[in-house]
Amino acid sequence: MTFDAETVAVLGLGLIGGSLARDLSARGVRVMGYDADAATLDAACTAAVVHQRLEASLAGLEGATIVIVAVPVSATRDVLTAASTHLARASLVMDVGSTKRTALAIAQSLGIAERFVGSHPMTGDHRSGWSAARRGLFAGATVYLCPTGITRAGPLALAHELWAALGARVQIIDADVHDARVALSSHLPHVASAAIALALSRANVGMGELGPGGRDVVRIAASSPDLWTAIALDNADAILGALAALESELGQFERALTTRDERALHALFSAARAWAR
Amino acid sequence: MTFDAETVAVLGLGLIGGSLARDLSARGVRVMGYDADAATLDAACTAAVVHQRLEASLAGLEGATIVIVAVPVSATRDVLTAASTHLARASLVMDVGSTKRTALAIAQSLGIAERFVGSHPMTGDHRSGWSAARRGLFAGATVYLCPTGITRAGPLALAHELWAALGARVQIIDADVHDARVALSSHLPHVASAAIALALSRANVGMGELGPGGRDVVRIAASSPDLWTAIALDNADAILGALAALESELGQFERALTTRDERALHALFSAARAWAR
Repeated sequence: MTFDAETVAVLGLGLIGGSLARDLSARGVRVMGYDADAATLDAACTAAVVHQRLEASLAGLEGATIVIVAVPVSATRDVLTAASTHLARASLVMDVGSTKRTALAIAQSLGIAERFVGSHPMTGDHRSGWSAARRGLFAGATVYLCPTGITRAGPLALAHELWAALGARVQIIDADVHDARVALSSHLPHVASAAIALALSRANVGMGELGPGGRDVVRIAASSPDLWTAIALDNADAILGALAALESELGQFERALTTRDERALHALFSAARAWAR
Repeated sequence: MTFDAETVAVLGLGLIGGSLARDLSARGVRVMGYDADAATLDAACTAAVVHQRLEASLAGLEGATIVIVAVPVSATRDVLTAASTHLARASLVMDVGSTKRTALAIAQSLGIAERFVGSHPMTGDHRSGWSAARRGLFAGATVYLCPTGITRAGPLALAHELWAALGARVQIIDADVHDARVALSSHLPHVASAAIALALSRANVGMGELGPGGRDVVRIAASSPDLWTAIALDNADAILGALAALESELGQFERALTTRDERALHALFSAARAWAR
């Protein structure tokens, strides 16, 4: 594995960054780390998951050959900008956010687009932060890779190799297509789950009143508001389209319920099951 | 336990009836069983979960002192009617369906309301049928009990004792209140999950494209269309109210997304998380 000889800097040690650092250091890769939360950074160093501690200045980042920015979408611009003056030796720069067009545009504006690969591991759930980070998070998970218009082949191959080595199923995809796709596959379930939670909250139905099936549906309503506000703002138009699609389907149920149309209801539930099985 | 000396007939050996039969026979209770599916009934008898096999005529049901009808809501009327001529010795008759007003009305029409207790274990998920039945299903689960207007204290106490002995947290509740409540706590998540599944299906997004959080949301979209069509029809008005409440919350997200209102989005995600944690 080429990248085993690399020094990887992980900026942001939350669920994804922390899990990356854990997986990489377990493979013997040298890991530099930074987190804005001092306690998180202390914990990662104490656990020997991070071998070289970076401070807010990012002094020392020059020694990294792979730099991974693993911060909320809203912080990507600031962290990538701060890192950009320390990337002389870096052959690959990645982010891991849930939207990709904006990250790629930032990389272009910073003049690092040739070495930049946007990445998005589909590993999020309701947990977040260093305490949720764990080895093996990416095993079997889909990871989308989005090159910029001018990303060179070497950095893309290196990114592919890194994620594949951690067990991910890698898909290379255009950033526009990615953002439209995850608006449906990820952002819609998150927003819908939150909306269901709010409807239940307003009706004074407690989480404890739900059965196991219902609890599954609202689990990700407990996701980080910071993370999801940033994602929602960054992909607002595509998410609005996905919500309109959901409302269209809810309307079908409403018409069938209003008219007590057993056949239509059965067809709807059957089509849903056929998809979900 | 009083009911350990009873003979319990379980009519319908799906997820709930099969699990009941498993738990009861494991306690040494004598279990009669019937299922319209001969293979299911064979399996339950072979597993010694059912000690006495009943045929479609329900001949022999007279020997049961507790009769539990565990069939889809749409079949409750037929099965209770068939059973009603065999209940001379029964001191308690229960159903286990997800709606309770209709079951109570059926019991009243059959003249068995004094001995009838509607019950609803909140244990459903996307699995159904005998193959999903398992011991311990009710441990820690909420089970609602709905007496009719004339249910006597003895049958209600016996029902309470039976479910509590299986580890359930029992709540006695008016059937009207129950049906309105589960329209929110159970039926809304089911219908919403199905609607999300349909929206993704129509957009050609595959189940495999979802991350772990998204998969949680659509898991119960794979629930039985037969069961859920019957439930939805039986509680249509309350579910329509719950769907209107959901659409109101979706509308809040849409307004915040359309106007890129970061503060409003954060407040919505925060309120959802506060409820769901």
